[in-house]
Amino acid sequence: MLSGLKRLLVGRPLPTALARHERLSKITGLAIFASDNLSSVAYATEEILRVLVVAGAAALTLSVPIGIAIAIVILIVINSYRQTILAYPQGASDYIVAKDNLGTLAGLTAGSALLIDYTLTVAVSVSAGIAALTSAFPALFEHRIVLCIGAIALISVGNLRGVRESGKLFALPSYLFIAGFVTLIAAGLVRYLLYGAPTPATPPPPTVTSLSPITLFLVLHAFSSGAVALTGIEAVADGVQAFKPPEVKNARTVLAVLGVIMITLFLGITLLAALYGILPRDEETVVSQLAWRIFGGGMPYFYIQGVSMLILVLAANTAFADFPRLAFFMARDGYLPRQFSNRGDRLVFSNGVVILAVTAAVLVAIFGGSTHALIPLYAVGVFTSFTLSQTSMVRRWLRTRPDGWWWRVAVNGVGALTTAVVLTVVASTKFVDGAWIVVLLITILIIVFFVIKRHYDDVARQLSLDGYGGPPPITHSVLVLVGDLHRGVVEALQYARTLSPGAKAVYVEADPERTRRLEERWVSHGLGVPLIVLTSPYRSLIGPLVDYIDHLQAQGGKHMVTIVVPEFLPARWWQHLLHNQTALLIKGALLFRKNVIVTDVPYHLSH
Amino acid sequence: MLSGLKRLLVGRPLPTALARHERLSKITGLAIFASDNLSSVAYATEEILRVLVVAGAAALTLSVPIGIAIAIVILIVINSYRQTILAYPQGASDYIVAKDNLGTLAGLTAGSALLIDYTLTVAVSVSAGIAALTSAFPALFEHRIVLCIGAIALISVGNLRGVRESGKLFALPSYLFIAGFVTLIAAGLVRYLLYGAPTPATPPPPTVTSLSPITLFLVLHAFSSGAVALTGIEAVADGVQAFKPPEVKNARTVLAVLGVIMITLFLGITLLAALYGILPRDEETVVSQLAWRIFGGGMPYFYIQGVSMLILVLAANTAFADFPRLAFFMARDGYLPRQFSNRGDRLVFSNGVVILAVTAAVLVAIFGGSTHALIPLYAVGVFTSFTLSQTSMVRRWLRTRPDGWWWRVAVNGVGALTTAVVLTVVASTKFVDGAWIVVLLITILIIVFFVIKRHYDDVARQLSLDGYGGPPPITHSVLVLVGDLHRGVVEALQYARTLSPGAKAVYVEADPERTRRLEERWVSHGLGVPLIVLTSPYRSLIGPLVDYIDHLQAQGGKHMVTIVVPEFLPARWWQHLLHNQTALLIKGALLFRKNVIVTDVPYHLSH
Repeated sequence: MLSGLKRLLVGRPLPTALARHERLSKITGLAIFASDNLSSVAYATEEILRVLVVAGAAALTLSVPIGIAIAIVILIVINSYRQTILAYPQGASDYIVAKDNLGTLAGLTAGSALLIDYTLTVAVSVSAGIAALTSAFPALFEHRIVLCIGAIALISVGNLRGVRESGKLFALPSYLFIAGFVTLIAAGLVRYLLYGAPTPATPPPPTVTSLSPITLFLVLHAFSSGAVALTGIEAVADGVQAFKPPEVKNARTVLAVLGVIMITLFLGITLLAALYGILPRDEETVVSQLAWRIFGGGMPYFYIQGVSMLILVLAANTAFADFPRLAFFMARDGYLPRQFSNRGDRLVFSNGVVILAVTAAVLVAIFGGSTHALIPLYAVGVFTSFTLSQTSMVRRWLRTRPDGWWWRVAVNGVGALTTAVVLTVVASTKFVDGAWIVVLLITILIIVFFVIKRHYDDVARQLSLDGYGGPPPITHSVLVLVGDLHRGVVEALQYARTLSPGAKAVYVEADPERTRRLEERWVSHGLGVPLIVLTSPYRSLIGPLVDYIDHLQAQGGKHMVTIVVPEFLPARWWQHLLHNQTALLIKGALLFRKNVIVTDVPYHLSH
Repeated sequence: MLSGLKRLLVGRPLPTALARHERLSKITGLAIFASDNLSSVAYATEEILRVLVVAGAAALTLSVPIGIAIAIVILIVINSYRQTILAYPQGASDYIVAKDNLGTLAGLTAGSALLIDYTLTVAVSVSAGIAALTSAFPALFEHRIVLCIGAIALISVGNLRGVRESGKLFALPSYLFIAGFVTLIAAGLVRYLLYGAPTPATPPPPTVTSLSPITLFLVLHAFSSGAVALTGIEAVADGVQAFKPPEVKNARTVLAVLGVIMITLFLGITLLAALYGILPRDEETVVSQLAWRIFGGGMPYFYIQGVSMLILVLAANTAFADFPRLAFFMARDGYLPRQFSNRGDRLVFSNGVVILAVTAAVLVAIFGGSTHALIPLYAVGVFTSFTLSQTSMVRRWLRTRPDGWWWRVAVNGVGALTTAVVLTVVASTKFVDGAWIVVLLITILIIVFFVIKRHYDDVARQLSLDGYGGPPPITHSVLVLVGDLHRGVVEALQYARTLSPGAKAVYVEADPERTRRLEERWVSHGLGVPLIVLTSPYRSLIGPLVDYIDHLQAQGGKHMVTIVVPEFLPARWWQHLLHNQTALLIKGALLFRKNVIVTDVPYHLSH
């Protein structure tokens, strides 16, 4: 039944041979990898305004220069990553790039930063998407956490079905979003040129009683909040191999197109918000306010809210492609549990998908589905991995010195410097707001990675056949543990004799009278297997059995003891409750004893 | 560590040989078996008054004749049970008495009624005990549920330690309670004779806006509520064998003494409540009000509240002696899961103790720790089993006809008739208040008993050796499932060869390149065991394995296949998370396949 449900949700299993065909064209590839980055257009401007508003409405116009500064950073980072794709045509996560060029510690730092960031991408994007929905339909506001978790579940199922289908599923909303926002920006600019900014219907009263001064810290803080617009840029470089051949060329083209679209939309919205004098409000997003003023409600307004929601909810999808892939690489290197490297029925890394979905859902629940509450955690991770990745590239060019290496060093050097400065600004201005959590978490994850790696290395050493002369010779006894004599026991005795002709039966005595009756019946049905009776003054089954095993193994040498436990297997689940779980008990008690093997021989009851 | 905690709470294991010495003297026996019955003195009067008060304060004096009627019923029932002890010197639960004389259905009805009643005894007594505490310390009122559950946990641990120690532990409070209440009643009567009833300091305003008339139904309803004073009388007859020899004589003496004390205390409190014009109130018990008026606060008041609480909390102890014992009898007859017939380390039926504690704690939590809310469920069970038990005794005397049988028939006949009438009154007047739940539950339990019994009978038939000609001849293959080649696998190969010289290794191929490498290493370390490679286009481990087993078993005859799964066993629990649980997976998948046995061979890692 469970497996039928799984088939229905996830689809039939795919053979391994199909793996290489699950590739993306440029069109669907852009849609897949763009949604994360582009979707931040829906909230990045708002986060800048929310910081500036404490210095009064006049300070809000600072958003335009701040937006331009962020656009320049985007340009630099896009350029840097286009170079990375050239150097790593097989697709290179920042984890791999940093590990290759700067060493293990740098690689693990980038890895943990990215894992945290992908998780936050899901939580932030889904929260912001549901905020777009509840801006249009305020009645849904109180159900936002349930809506968020439902959206996460939906995306997980899509991803468990496999990458090609998710590409098709997610291509359309990305393009609808781009078209919608380009129209919104164009209409907004035209309207402004023709009529100027409309005065707001009800000018909101100033919510801040005492205004803060405009300080450098405030401006940098606003810049840090807007820097979330860069999240998701690294995804293309990470997933080069998801593209159809020629992979490198396609990936670089997509990245360039993404950059152009992103800068256009982000600067457009930021400029419009300043021109129209939008104030950030808790109950309605900045984009919703803009769309309302420009289109005056109606279908166009709902279209903008609809595609904002769609692309935000689907942006989480990028993380669902990236997180499991990164976890696979890290698991393959022994820094994460091996289970992350298994492909599921549909050729996706299902364990990664499930872990990501659960963690993000928990985050959303803890932070009450509020984008604004999650933002301080965000961006530290991205800029950590950006900086490490760009520094790695500089190091690489300096070592390999290909044609035009000085130009490449310059491009990635500017990238590294820029992202390092932004990282410092982000981490310091948002430290008390929540960035400290991420810094702490990165540190903890690095320690966990090392512990896991050490365990796997240890196991490999202990199991290694190098210098192994073969196992020592062993001797062997088979004991059948009996509590009674019935058909199940007789069949177990017969089975034990096929394992060893010298098999013996062992009975732990609870009551001498029962022993006498058992011995009588043993004569006729015991198949000639000798019966050994152990006394048990404390009614324990395990104690006397362990003593007897000790006695057998005391002869010296390696003596294996196989304990055969006859067990009847009821036909229905509830019937298990009506029987002592002796086999389980014995298994648990002897699990950590060396050279003892417990085998239960089930006797199948028919009803 | 867990077992260390268990030792600390429960004490060291006791040998079976000690079982017969865990017996009670008359003094401790009275304390053990009296607490349940006597403790109802603390709330029975109040329950009568709570019903009568709807007809106005004047109706409250009806409590005295109602109390006398209940005392007469107590007298009759005590007398009847003293006869039962004579007939069942080995100790007879109403379940056994009814089953012996009236048949299985009557026995199971009595059994389910008693199991429910014991559970309610714990819930009601503990709730009432905590009510005595919160009457004296109103600040604790809001923590009553936690206090109730804590008390239940405490009693359970006491009982898991064993009966003699619980006897000693519980003897003192019973006698302190008797002494305290005798003093309270004497002081109350003397004070009334000398000064008359004091006028209440603040006469409480009438809480009932429109008074009900005094109807027959009202009087019978009040009688039913007061009938809870009879609960626990049957305990002595049930536990004759818990007494020191001569068991029968001691048990009958204790029962007679119990009857005298019970009637004295119950009538005393009922009379005083009428003389002092006590009105039932939610926030303070009737006993608390009485003690306050008679002693005027101070040490004597707190003494009464203290011993009320102690005896009530400890009254639950009777149920902790009775419930597991009854469950043992019913399990021995196959009507309850067999686990209830196992004696734990300390010779008590630990499973019964644990189930009772958990169920009672859940009841207390559901009913918010309110005695009054639980009372309507109570008493239906007791009177059902009383009636069945007394009717059984009549039947028995008529059949066996011992000396003076007509006198015995008369005693138990009066008992049966009286309890049947009370049962009818209780069930009908309290039906809508909650008695219907108990009636429904008794029916459900009876059905469950029959289902369990049928299963055990079925199993016994299927396993029976009667007419069994011995097992059919079997053939046998041993397969070692390998995913790699390392020391653990080599040792498993060696072990498999001791089970069968024809053992083979099976490898499910994921990737042809890995297969090639495995085959290379197999030559030098495979111990000469043949390696069979199965292809798996869908990466499933189970599918190809099952096909191969089908192929082996298709030869006809009974062919056993033993699958040896090498497994390494990490030294620390968290390391299990880092390994695929292949053995568990295979075990689960093949559990219901006949003639397949999965054996995991652990390789112990040292760190």
